[in-house]
Amino acid sequence: MAHIIIHEVGIRDGLQIEKDIVPTDRKLDWIAKLAASGVDMIQVGSFVNPAKVPQMADTDELFRQLAAAPQRPGLIYTGLVLNEKGLERGMACGVEYFCMGVSASETHSRKNTGMTTADATDRIIAMGRQAADAGKGVQVSVQSAFGCGFDGHIPLDRVLGIVRRYADAGLTAVSLADSSGHADPDQVEEMVNAVQAIGASIGITCHFHNTFGMGLANVYASFRAGVRTFETGFGGLGGCPFVAMAAGNVCTEDVIHMFHRANLRRDIDLGAIVSVTKDAAAFFNKPLPGTIHRTGPIFHPGRFAAPTND
Amino acid sequence: MAHIIIHEVGIRDGLQIEKDIVPTDRKLDWIAKLAASGVDMIQVGSFVNPAKVPQMADTDELFRQLAAAPQRPGLIYTGLVLNEKGLERGMACGVEYFCMGVSASETHSRKNTGMTTADATDRIIAMGRQAADAGKGVQVSVQSAFGCGFDGHIPLDRVLGIVRRYADAGLTAVSLADSSGHADPDQVEEMVNAVQAIGASIGITCHFHNTFGMGLANVYASFRAGVRTFETGFGGLGGCPFVAMAAGNVCTEDVIHMFHRANLRRDIDLGAIVSVTKDAAAFFNKPLPGTIHRTGPIFHPGRFAAPTND
Repeated sequence: MAHIIIHEVGIRDGLQIEKDIVPTDRKLDWIAKLAASGVDMIQVGSFVNPAKVPQMADTDELFRQLAAAPQRPGLIYTGLVLNEKGLERGMACGVEYFCMGVSASETHSRKNTGMTTADATDRIIAMGRQAADAGKGVQVSVQSAFGCGFDGHIPLDRVLGIVRRYADAGLTAVSLADSSGHADPDQVEEMVNAVQAIGASIGITCHFHNTFGMGLANVYASFRAGVRTFETGFGGLGGCPFVAMAAGNVCTEDVIHMFHRANLRRDIDLGAIVSVTKDAAAFFNKPLPGTIHRTGPIFHPGRFAAPTND
Repeated sequence: MAHIIIHEVGIRDGLQIEKDIVPTDRKLDWIAKLAASGVDMIQVGSFVNPAKVPQMADTDELFRQLAAAPQRPGLIYTGLVLNEKGLERGMACGVEYFCMGVSASETHSRKNTGMTTADATDRIIAMGRQAADAGKGVQVSVQSAFGCGFDGHIPLDRVLGIVRRYADAGLTAVSLADSSGHADPDQVEEMVNAVQAIGASIGITCHFHNTFGMGLANVYASFRAGVRTFETGFGGLGGCPFVAMAAGNVCTEDVIHMFHRANLRRDIDLGAIVSVTKDAAAFFNKPLPGTIHRTGPIFHPGRFAAPTND
């Protein structure tokens, strides 16, 4: 069984929508705790216009400080870029792994980028190739892949068409993002199977929001279909301000707890992540949507006596 | 594909743990709305000691009133019985479908019944046979099947042993109940497969609580493994007062919404159930844990243009 990979995106997807801006030192403290927990990837920020998204204004500074500090071997810090200028900024501050994408929803695409999906795909492929040719890691995503608060149903063929274009350009790390939380587990299995059928080289990540409560069910459905990499956010914070009714990311500690129970990933320190969630709840002075930070984990070892990570 | 069956248990499992007692007329109103929604089975109450569980004291009266009123064809009202006296009461007020069970956890069994699991199984089999021989419907359950807040891990063989005894006695409608919400979807698939292997005559129902957020994931996992009958509670109310840290039933409208999205069951009126949940939230004057009554359903038809129930 392939190792499950957790890509913690709460520092970006969780914080970008909050009104209160988290100071850089606090972000660094949270990133350090998340890194120490044992998650595999951490999305540090987004290279967007600081005037428009002040929550992400310190992204370059965060990368600079992280690059100067000791780093856990194997841990990957990722940065989200939306355009060429963002890519340039990311290159300049030492980002080694870039995430970028397009929306399968025309309305979402126009609101986010001012471009059609087709034009945005041209642009992202050019940017992705530029980063890959410079030796950087690249993940390309399809946002609103499972439905859209504006456009409603997104036909599967739209998603597959984008993934085929990515794959033809040699960009094979693909994230299927349920930006509005519309996915149901049956749909997830269908889409994952269809994307896998495009080619064995494609490595699928899934990114779910828990808007309608189906987040963990969708994680499990994608796992059953063969997905091993998941983008999750501590505390279940998050949501895209340009997606109608978007709610939080599927919650990191809840996902890890589920895989821990099933003996599929047991070396991540849940307590370290919960401590970040609790600190974030105190900082934002509101309850966060995740479950495990309130209930604690199930306290008995379950069916498996000892951790057995591969 | 077999038809999905929803057994609404909120009137029993949801209300028995609440401090405020719902008046009989209000229960009848809620039952009428739930019946009109199109769910298949409704658990009306529990035949327990009214002095100990005053929330259920009107169970006999409810059955009498329901028997006297017009009834939707095909709808089944069920009653929970814990002992011979409860069965006698149920027979006297016209119950046609009895639910009963034992706990796979010794501590939970002693706290609930004062008996060991083995002795409780003898008793329930005798009661189940008595009801079945009188021509009544009978469902026998295994509570704490997936873990226990007191005893921790429950070995699968304990559950299978109880199910085998039920099946040997000809009691083949079996509910696997996750009383404390400890189940994870991987475990659910394993247990469902193992119970199915006991014999093709066994019809499995699953009953999940959402204590650790895995409720919908577990419903989906059991569905994937072949289960078609689910016990759910409107609003996600519920929980057994004798189980440590138990939280609400997996939420009826959230489960139906998930199956609706996947085109697996689309003839149930979500709005009717949500109206009961909203009325219950007003009655108890607190937010209820379910999701869809707050968010509303996803508003576009999704992948499927028209309902296609079989």
